[in-house]
Amino acid sequence: MHEDFPVPEAADIVVIGGSAAGLTAATVARRYHPEKSIAIIRRDSPVPIPCGIPYIFGTIGSVERDLIPDALLDFEGIDLVEEEVARLDRENRQVVLADGTTIGYDKLILATGSTPLIPPIPGADKQNVFVIRKNVDQISEFLTALRAAHDVVIVGGGFIGVEFADEIKKHSDKNVTVVEMLPHCLALSFDASFCAAAEKQLASAGVKVLTGEKVTEITGGEKVAGVRLASGTELKADVVLISAGVRPNVELAAQAGLKADPVAGIWVDRHMRTEDPHIFACGDCAAKVSFFTGKPCPVRLASVATMEARVVAANLYENRRENPGIIGVVSTVVGRVAFAAAGLTEEAARREGFAVVTGEAVTPNRHPKVMPGVTDTRVKLVFEKGSGVILGGQALGGESVGELINVVATCILNRMTCEQVALLQVGTHPLLTAAPTNYYLSVAAEAAAQKLHGERN
Amino acid sequence: MHEDFPVPEAADIVVIGGSAAGLTAATVARRYHPEKSIAIIRRDSPVPIPCGIPYIFGTIGSVERDLIPDALLDFEGIDLVEEEVARLDRENRQVVLADGTTIGYDKLILATGSTPLIPPIPGADKQNVFVIRKNVDQISEFLTALRAAHDVVIVGGGFIGVEFADEIKKHSDKNVTVVEMLPHCLALSFDASFCAAAEKQLASAGVKVLTGEKVTEITGGEKVAGVRLASGTELKADVVLISAGVRPNVELAAQAGLKADPVAGIWVDRHMRTEDPHIFACGDCAAKVSFFTGKPCPVRLASVATMEARVVAANLYENRRENPGIIGVVSTVVGRVAFAAAGLTEEAARREGFAVVTGEAVTPNRHPKVMPGVTDTRVKLVFEKGSGVILGGQALGGESVGELINVVATCILNRMTCEQVALLQVGTHPLLTAAPTNYYLSVAAEAAAQKLHGERN
Repeated sequence: MHEDFPVPEAADIVVIGGSAAGLTAATVARRYHPEKSIAIIRRDSPVPIPCGIPYIFGTIGSVERDLIPDALLDFEGIDLVEEEVARLDRENRQVVLADGTTIGYDKLILATGSTPLIPPIPGADKQNVFVIRKNVDQISEFLTALRAAHDVVIVGGGFIGVEFADEIKKHSDKNVTVVEMLPHCLALSFDASFCAAAEKQLASAGVKVLTGEKVTEITGGEKVAGVRLASGTELKADVVLISAGVRPNVELAAQAGLKADPVAGIWVDRHMRTEDPHIFACGDCAAKVSFFTGKPCPVRLASVATMEARVVAANLYENRRENPGIIGVVSTVVGRVAFAAAGLTEEAARREGFAVVTGEAVTPNRHPKVMPGVTDTRVKLVFEKGSGVILGGQALGGESVGELINVVATCILNRMTCEQVALLQVGTHPLLTAAPTNYYLSVAAEAAAQKLHGERN
Repeated sequence: MHEDFPVPEAADIVVIGGSAAGLTAATVARRYHPEKSIAIIRRDSPVPIPCGIPYIFGTIGSVERDLIPDALLDFEGIDLVEEEVARLDRENRQVVLADGTTIGYDKLILATGSTPLIPPIPGADKQNVFVIRKNVDQISEFLTALRAAHDVVIVGGGFIGVEFADEIKKHSDKNVTVVEMLPHCLALSFDASFCAAAEKQLASAGVKVLTGEKVTEITGGEKVAGVRLASGTELKADVVLISAGVRPNVELAAQAGLKADPVAGIWVDRHMRTEDPHIFACGDCAAKVSFFTGKPCPVRLASVATMEARVVAANLYENRRENPGIIGVVSTVVGRVAFAAAGLTEEAARREGFAVVTGEAVTPNRHPKVMPGVTDTRVKLVFEKGSGVILGGQALGGESVGELINVVATCILNRMTCEQVALLQVGTHPLLTAAPTNYYLSVAAEAAAQKLHGERN
């Protein structure tokens, strides 16, 4: 516990959890309610910046350089309580800490996060088999083992797996292998051709990528020695990292009788309120619905957590904001190429029952092509066929792809049609973007619009 | 005239002008009408890429490396006629060339562009006083004079003036001075603090910037020797570049009896059709209305030209697309900083009669801050006070600002409120963007939302 911060008896607004969701909920609530007392209760001290974790091996160098600064909370007049919460006492509106101390609340925000999923693989409990927990000591322990290792196997080719593989290979000559069950890495966010481009980047960096492969056993004695695959392949391994998704931390809510599903998360309404009008939930622990279908949505992202936290912070005393459902917007860098996606892939859209039309563009990100820093940007947009409304987009190319996908996400949020996306008004510049005649999104949307026009005539 | 392309007797679709608007109109029309014959008539051969022109001095190296490739037209089956048009014969639906030859049309697209404005300054006709015309020979002549010059004076601190100054100073030790009448450079696109940041970049690169200064005379004999300012200052000058805006080329339209204003441009309806149902206009030659007010809009940009060309290309045989009015989205690089703006500045919004509320954010463009390539991004958003609807935005920072402003533009196009912008769903990544807790636009919009909330309570 911080000696500077004695545990308060009560606070108007109590937040459980100090990562992206909890921190944003507390600091935004502070702005709307300067007169209220606000406290954050968190288990870990201090908290790593989650998105930075894959880059601690070389780019950042240590977990100590990847921490959320606590000074912010002090500055905002937010009490910080570093304790484990034992249970919620809803009747008396108080949080009960592990040592029996209670903290009263008027409004409670659950931002308890998620826990890495460990698939039931025999041997997953061996020494040097890790998952990424947002905890300084555990990450440091993993880093120490990683630095000493020669053969590294990463189980799961999602963003965390791919980013760790890329980072480790960029900063060492270790033997790195990624094992992915699905036909491609990053397959939940990208269609096959974009996944293949990411895999090509990994391969040229020297990462071995095994897709459509299932791990059946983690071998060795007390300590891991290898990984056995369903195909019969055996991989040597000094360290295994399992990155196979997360499960929401719903225990506190469930034990307090709130509706919560161990896979979907703590149930919340559109205003992010649980069944108890005094309790809200946001971030990884909260159940989510898809922007596109209203169905449960498994996406867990820091950027989603902060959006939800902004909804909660504004709604504590009146319903002012609505969560429109989750689009799912992601970006990353693999090798020297940025990859980004928003909304549904073509494959996911079809699976959800949409008839789709797509449009693509491949355009240099400078004009004329002789400008320094030029590289091709590839864009694919997915539209619903009947209405022409945009459902998703994918892009790969230079650094600006990270913001380009946010243009796509904004088009999705506004349910723009391919006709409207083709007519986007954008700024272009020789040193910053494609030529105006060739702007990625206009060209891709125009291609889709032309297909729809052709079919109607 | 291209020997490969004999002048056709007629084409279904005839375009006059081969720059951003004409080229886009022709190539998009080709997609919608594969069966139609299409011809472009243009005066110059070949056509420089307009946005690249300020970078020919050093970054590109010569105007020959900054040309729109004609191979595209060939590939698309578009006839190219390199001739001066003398007049339009609307009664017989034909274009009359300078030599008397006629080309018949069913649909005619005027994309005749604009001509640089030369203010009535005594001495503006001296040798080595230049404006930027989109013509290879004239640009080459300017470049030759520029290379030989020591003292360069640029009259007009808009984008062209600032970009030329920055480029010349980056690639030479010439004495470069920008003279701007308004209190700041770039003042039509940015509020004062952003203009000041751009001027600071220019100053640290060694460019002299004189604002609030009017040129009263260009001195010298046959050839320019200096520039005299209203304040009495005299500047030495071997070369003067005048970049003081453009006037639309309306002569052909006006002579043919179409409604056209020498300052505003050729009148068009929302579907970009002139008073003659067979004749359309797009790009710099066409009159524009503001997205925000419906009033005439002086913005002339290649990105606006291509948007308008897409409207024209789809509407030739039926009204399929509407021009929603011009937002005005721009980006540039000054020194090592990218600057971008969309919509109305705070000052312009107030001048137009809006009550406004603004929100700002200053955020590193990486997270954590130790990531390579980190630089602060500054954002200012302008909202209408009553509705909370976004009217404009400005940003400065790293390369991604070029696309960040397109997120802002998409928010504007969809008339999003500050509440909605605060809840944008975006992708974030340590190597590409701000932290999700700190995303530029969410933070700036939240600040505005909080101001509005505070005033209402």
